[in-house]
Amino acid sequence: MTTRTKATFFPPIPEAQRWLQGIEFSPDRPLINLAQAAPADPPPAPMLAAMAEMLGEPESHLYGPVLGLPGLRDALAQEWSGHYAGSVGAAEVGITAGCNQAFAAVMSALTTEGDEVLLPVPWYFNHKMWLDMAGVKAVPLPCDDRLIPDMEAARRLIGGRTKAIVLVTPNNPTGAEYPAQTLRALYDLCRDTGVKLVVDETYRDFDSRPGAPHDLLSDPDRADVLIQLYSFSKAYRLTGHRIGAIIAAETLLHEVEKFQDTVAICAPSFGQKAALWGLENLARWKAGQRDEILARRAALADAFGPLEARGWRLRGLGAYFAYVEHPFAMGASALAPLLVREAQALVLPATMFMPQGDASGERCLRVAFANADAARLRLFAERLAAVDLPPLAP
Amino acid sequence: MTTRTKATFFPPIPEAQRWLQGIEFSPDRPLINLAQAAPADPPPAPMLAAMAEMLGEPESHLYGPVLGLPGLRDALAQEWSGHYAGSVGAAEVGITAGCNQAFAAVMSALTTEGDEVLLPVPWYFNHKMWLDMAGVKAVPLPCDDRLIPDMEAARRLIGGRTKAIVLVTPNNPTGAEYPAQTLRALYDLCRDTGVKLVVDETYRDFDSRPGAPHDLLSDPDRADVLIQLYSFSKAYRLTGHRIGAIIAAETLLHEVEKFQDTVAICAPSFGQKAALWGLENLARWKAGQRDEILARRAALADAFGPLEARGWRLRGLGAYFAYVEHPFAMGASALAPLLVREAQALVLPATMFMPQGDASGERCLRVAFANADAARLRLFAERLAAVDLPPLAP
Repeated sequence: MTTRTKATFFPPIPEAQRWLQGIEFSPDRPLINLAQAAPADPPPAPMLAAMAEMLGEPESHLYGPVLGLPGLRDALAQEWSGHYAGSVGAAEVGITAGCNQAFAAVMSALTTEGDEVLLPVPWYFNHKMWLDMAGVKAVPLPCDDRLIPDMEAARRLIGGRTKAIVLVTPNNPTGAEYPAQTLRALYDLCRDTGVKLVVDETYRDFDSRPGAPHDLLSDPDRADVLIQLYSFSKAYRLTGHRIGAIIAAETLLHEVEKFQDTVAICAPSFGQKAALWGLENLARWKAGQRDEILARRAALADAFGPLEARGWRLRGLGAYFAYVEHPFAMGASALAPLLVREAQALVLPATMFMPQGDASGERCLRVAFANADAARLRLFAERLAAVDLPPLAP
Repeated sequence: MTTRTKATFFPPIPEAQRWLQGIEFSPDRPLINLAQAAPADPPPAPMLAAMAEMLGEPESHLYGPVLGLPGLRDALAQEWSGHYAGSVGAAEVGITAGCNQAFAAVMSALTTEGDEVLLPVPWYFNHKMWLDMAGVKAVPLPCDDRLIPDMEAARRLIGGRTKAIVLVTPNNPTGAEYPAQTLRALYDLCRDTGVKLVVDETYRDFDSRPGAPHDLLSDPDRADVLIQLYSFSKAYRLTGHRIGAIIAAETLLHEVEKFQDTVAICAPSFGQKAALWGLENLARWKAGQRDEILARRAALADAFGPLEARGWRLRGLGAYFAYVEHPFAMGASALAPLLVREAQALVLPATMFMPQGDASGERCLRVAFANADAARLRLFAERLAAVDLPPLAP
């Protein structure tokens, strides 16, 4: 029996977590878990105190509007307008239970059975999984050596059933921060071909570039072309509360409301109130978090220096992720589980972010470095340096 | 452009809420809102105190396993085993972000484009909406005068593409509590035809019958046939925290995990911990809530007595809902918005729970009576009695 779920693969993160089963880590050599992009710490103390107050407010526990609390929609619209030098109204913001849900909802409003969506490769596996389940073909869009989407290929791959190009920037899994001119070129291509440009900006708060990463939100046609996705999970350490957002034309959000009502009724009210408090009170704290993650990025780059002599190569680095090429003869899909025992480190093979049969994924690993401080990242690099396996033949 | 969301209608609850726009209610005649099945009060004080403690536990704010916190899965399995005199293991329980999501996830694991699912009419509109968006045909299954599914029709309507019969008991919108023998007969039909029986038991905690409402969970074939859905929203007043559950074979939940990972990553961790606390500590409190709702049910039945002389008829009554036939010449879809002005009462027309074109929905209204206490329900009946509109020609 064919079903929607049978049209796709099992989720990679739980699979990777199963590699840990039955393995004991000694206290002097604990696991370094760089598998999932997820803050390991709770929200900061002032937010926890505010959340304690919110518990006493009845509406924290009740259903809210399908597209989110008006105050949160308004606050995010203002923040978004400021950051991108655009003009976003509260009606152009929809709140979802996490950014994965934002993607699923937007795809449901844009596509149907047999449609096509372009995804740069490597892609975010949950995007591919949702498209599989929705009966939509994920068309692999090649990237260049800098892991930036290839414009010529994009132009060539858009066909009669193409409904959207989906970008993640800063990228998951590669860390690549797409240049403003790349986004502009893809935006223009989308506008000219009647295709939507969906930009997942989950990691925008940790972009190394100051200011807005693109100027698309000030384009006069943006309501017809641009859809942005966002997550409150990383910026405010609210992963477990499941709050994300869609920034798009009001007409699109009206369609999204059908999906949200049916799949979620609404995003959790309590988490929405926490996210709003964060937007209103944690701008400076968030800037400090960004500084810390940029410092970790620098630490990882430094620590990787000595590894290059051993054949390792840092191919992408930004926001939460490093995309690294390993030097061994074996493929990444076999190497990653082995590294749990050999290096007490959990990272994901790039094959998890690739079309089946694309062997290039066997050369790379995704490292969610933002989860570890500089000392741990140095330790991680040292452990990798000590791994003794047959190298790839030159 | 056809899309998944364009294949269905706009959500009824927000539409009904828009009827309130621009209307002022005087303090001596406030709105009686019986539109949505949603507790108006926050969780009880001891649970709020426990939730305040949970704020200090880091994992309350972090991602949890895709199918839910092990402790919650285990506790619900135990509670379920006790109530239904069955034997459910933690691996047979999956936690979702609300019961709507449980339904969507199960349908994704059972069906694909072009499949069919039988839904008794009137149906729960979110079920119909999801099936529309999933490309699955919702086949209307007629009910008899007691609003119980017609067995002969069920037998006749099962075809080569039928993957499930979906029941809601106690029912939304009718309040009907399906007899155990009806469930058994439909279960046997499903088993014999290789179709799944999905029983949405969101309102089980408010069933007027003592003990288990059916014995299906002790059937030796149940893993191949039975899927139960549950919600923590009503029982513990956790609507805004979005916690539901699926009780089904482990193999099915393994498929469900793909959907959950992609649409939600996990149900909110904080709400899951609250639900677990409720299961462990609020059994007596929940029994008291049930008593209160049964008292409201009795109060509504009493208050409706005098309305019968005016042509009103109580067709269904149970758990959260009354299904009432109105006496007016106009249809329910026009009457319901009019009642906001005429009776300061918000209820939904049965047309919202019917296939398009099924005119029988114009005769009835759904009343979510559990949201109001006995005094307000009497007031509601008095206001209905005072509505002066042309009656239906006999």
